[in-house]
Amino acid sequence: MKEDKKGGEDKGSSTKEEIRTLREKLMAQQMLIREKGLPIIVLVEGWAAAGKGTLISEMISELDPRFYNVVSPAILPNREERYPFLYPYACAIPENGKIMFYDSGWMEAAVRKYLHRDITKEQYKDRIRSANEFERQLRDGGYIILKLFLDIGREEQRDRIALLRSDRETEWRVSEDDIWQHSEYDLFRSTYEEFMEKTGKTVEWHVLNGEKKKASVRDALKLLVDAADKALAEGRYCGKPFKENFPLLKMPRLSEVDLSLCIDEEEYSRELKRLQSRLAELHNIIYRKKIPVILCYEGWDAAGKGGNIRRIARPLDPRGFDVMPIASPEPHELARQYLWRFWTRLPRSGHICIFDRTWYGRVMVERLEGFCSEDDWKRAYNEMNEFERQLTDWGAVVIKFWIHIDPDTQLQRFTDRQNTPEKQWKLTEEDWRNREKWSEYEEAIDEMLRKTSTENAPWYIIESNDKKYARIKTLKIVTEALEKACSEHM
Amino acid sequence: MKEDKKGGEDKGSSTKEEIRTLREKLMAQQMLIREKGLPIIVLVEGWAAAGKGTLISEMISELDPRFYNVVSPAILPNREERYPFLYPYACAIPENGKIMFYDSGWMEAAVRKYLHRDITKEQYKDRIRSANEFERQLRDGGYIILKLFLDIGREEQRDRIALLRSDRETEWRVSEDDIWQHSEYDLFRSTYEEFMEKTGKTVEWHVLNGEKKKASVRDALKLLVDAADKALAEGRYCGKPFKENFPLLKMPRLSEVDLSLCIDEEEYSRELKRLQSRLAELHNIIYRKKIPVILCYEGWDAAGKGGNIRRIARPLDPRGFDVMPIASPEPHELARQYLWRFWTRLPRSGHICIFDRTWYGRVMVERLEGFCSEDDWKRAYNEMNEFERQLTDWGAVVIKFWIHIDPDTQLQRFTDRQNTPEKQWKLTEEDWRNREKWSEYEEAIDEMLRKTSTENAPWYIIESNDKKYARIKTLKIVTEALEKACSEHM
Repeated sequence: MKEDKKGGEDKGSSTKEEIRTLREKLMAQQMLIREKGLPIIVLVEGWAAAGKGTLISEMISELDPRFYNVVSPAILPNREERYPFLYPYACAIPENGKIMFYDSGWMEAAVRKYLHRDITKEQYKDRIRSANEFERQLRDGGYIILKLFLDIGREEQRDRIALLRSDRETEWRVSEDDIWQHSEYDLFRSTYEEFMEKTGKTVEWHVLNGEKKKASVRDALKLLVDAADKALAEGRYCGKPFKENFPLLKMPRLSEVDLSLCIDEEEYSRELKRLQSRLAELHNIIYRKKIPVILCYEGWDAAGKGGNIRRIARPLDPRGFDVMPIASPEPHELARQYLWRFWTRLPRSGHICIFDRTWYGRVMVERLEGFCSEDDWKRAYNEMNEFERQLTDWGAVVIKFWIHIDPDTQLQRFTDRQNTPEKQWKLTEEDWRNREKWSEYEEAIDEMLRKTSTENAPWYIIESNDKKYARIKTLKIVTEALEKACSEHM
Repeated sequence: MKEDKKGGEDKGSSTKEEIRTLREKLMAQQMLIREKGLPIIVLVEGWAAAGKGTLISEMISELDPRFYNVVSPAILPNREERYPFLYPYACAIPENGKIMFYDSGWMEAAVRKYLHRDITKEQYKDRIRSANEFERQLRDGGYIILKLFLDIGREEQRDRIALLRSDRETEWRVSEDDIWQHSEYDLFRSTYEEFMEKTGKTVEWHVLNGEKKKASVRDALKLLVDAADKALAEGRYCGKPFKENFPLLKMPRLSEVDLSLCIDEEEYSRELKRLQSRLAELHNIIYRKKIPVILCYEGWDAAGKGGNIRRIARPLDPRGFDVMPIASPEPHELARQYLWRFWTRLPRSGHICIFDRTWYGRVMVERLEGFCSEDDWKRAYNEMNEFERQLTDWGAVVIKFWIHIDPDTQLQRFTDRQNTPEKQWKLTEEDWRNREKWSEYEEAIDEMLRKTSTENAPWYIIESNDKKYARIKTLKIVTEALEKACSEHM
């Protein structure tokens, strides 16, 4: 491990002076960081007993408490197993203008689980890939990320662990896991090094010498102050779109879809009953096998999303599913990376979550209404593909539906809503305005379907001029996907 | 258990017809409930295998998914033990205009824990009292609460459990706990009855016959439709304030406080060091003994809250505490009962949470700026006392500080902030406006201190014209309180 050389040895009083100066600088930066709404992530990783907590304490000591937060795996409920790998870290990202300190994070979660053999080599590689994606997405979304690794040698760790264990007041701080880490010091060292090598390209790592406490505090503060200075000078970063080679499924254009498809009443009743009853059985198995299921609904206004969702929800045990209606983001959601409000709404494993509208708003309404920059929505195709792959890595079934109708059918349904008092609330001014932009939307949707239908998270176009036909088709797709998942998941 | 007689026997097709009519009525009510922003809680309690899930399924089957949610202890992470009794239920309350179905709730949590002997008779009584307080507070805040108990006889339960266990697909649905409940059927029955008797005054219970599925669905729907009708006709309820006999501590008026108190530099440095080092030790013990600690800061603008909080936070392990800055509520917070945003911010046991401003905004800024009705803020004294008692029931140390200065000192600090570029961000127009209302605020604060300083959650007035004096006094109070808690908590 090559340490960052910041400025000589631990010379006591002069280091103390430098720390004071840096703290003052950081205090002065607070106001500007807040004003400019820059979000900062400080990830502090390192050995057990390396002093991560102390380092964070020293870094925050003069900060306004409204300005930062500290999060640590110990604080987060131990539910990672029921959620995707990155879940606790993604849920904790800071809002604009704030600093979040992670007292160990995704590096430790990947390395430790791997060395514990809780995950396979393959899964470990996936975690490394996910970590890179996560950091890049945040950086491209304007987050400043500082990654620190607090290093101590094997003898130093041995002495510190012994010291902690010798005192009744501190012995509980040394866990079984820490002792195990010490016994496998070399294995850990090479794995940490490999992890840093493989995740150091997008956002670099800084190795600090944890054996020299003051110097490491000074170095960490200097890195933070410099990173903030740079961001304040250059302004908020916005990543450029780039092409990733996701294997994409071929999708038809919306104009090619046959909307005359329909079903007769008798077949509808029979199939509805059959499929719902099968879905109820599958829900049981899903629950028992702890398979997470994410169903995504997008579609034209008045296409029949609500009724379609109700037919899926009807046979499900209400304890095991949730419908998440997605409206415009609230202020606290706008103040964070755009996927945050979806991360925080993910179901536990074994549960079904139905998203009524989704993250794809980014490349539809947000694109067309100018709620984000062109780079933002162009980057989003790839980011959403990555996000969904992280979900399927975790074992989730992810299915996306585009509920499709033609403009005449929409007009007819709008008019019907307008003339039926109980349905008027479903129709808003915005629906009429969106309707006027039909062709722009169609173009955006075609692009979305083309760029984000992946094998692990495919799009299905559901012909919904005949709502009953649409419901049966959706039910079939869902039951088939769950059959498959249940049979693969032993 | 006396069942609600709603309308004769389970007559098959006619009951089916009634259910259809009621569902249509509920669908029509949806829009109005949403428009008027009425929040509805449907609590479904009852025996294991009584069919609670199915009942909820039947109730929601025609509802728009944007309109309701279902929550159940199985869905909530199993963290009740690290949080107050009511925490999972309070965090899940619906926002205005929505229905939340609880698939078992605070009744089951109280009764089962008690019969399991996880809690004492005394704690069980506290839970009954808390449940009553919780329901009353929500009702007074405009929530519609419908409490259902789904009843089945001993033989029926035996048969249903046997049936579930006979099928490989459903046997996992019967837990050890369910079998134990069945073996203690009579004990459970009398305890459920007692619980309902003791919690039926503010919000009544409805016992439904779970052996007659259709009739119970019809009855539940009828109760919901009637409750919604009533609320739609009468408008949102707002509870009247009433006097509770909380044992209150005598507090001086602010005008009587001696603000000339100060400390010399030498004593300050010595005491700061001593107290912070003691606090660090205590934090270790707190963490180990899993004692939750809640420190509440209120005070005049520029009184020195921030610096005071920093001196408390300095010696704490950043993994074990959080500072929660409380700003004006966000839209999603305004859409729920006012204590919700504090419930959701409570620390886990063993952690320290420092609230930088608190729920007392209700009786200060919200009162004076007219952000809530007179009944609302007058009721709040009692509601906040109850809330804090629920926290101390859980074992929390709750301490409240009023950081006090006089108007001249404030003016001096405002002027200083105005003239110091790094401090300007701390001073807003609002601060000047609040200053003009000093005497109104003083009156409100005096009333607050008089009505909410309880033995379990006392207020301390901190003289802060000399900020250093204030810091030492606060540190002393905190360390003493923690010493006491650590010695009582074996």
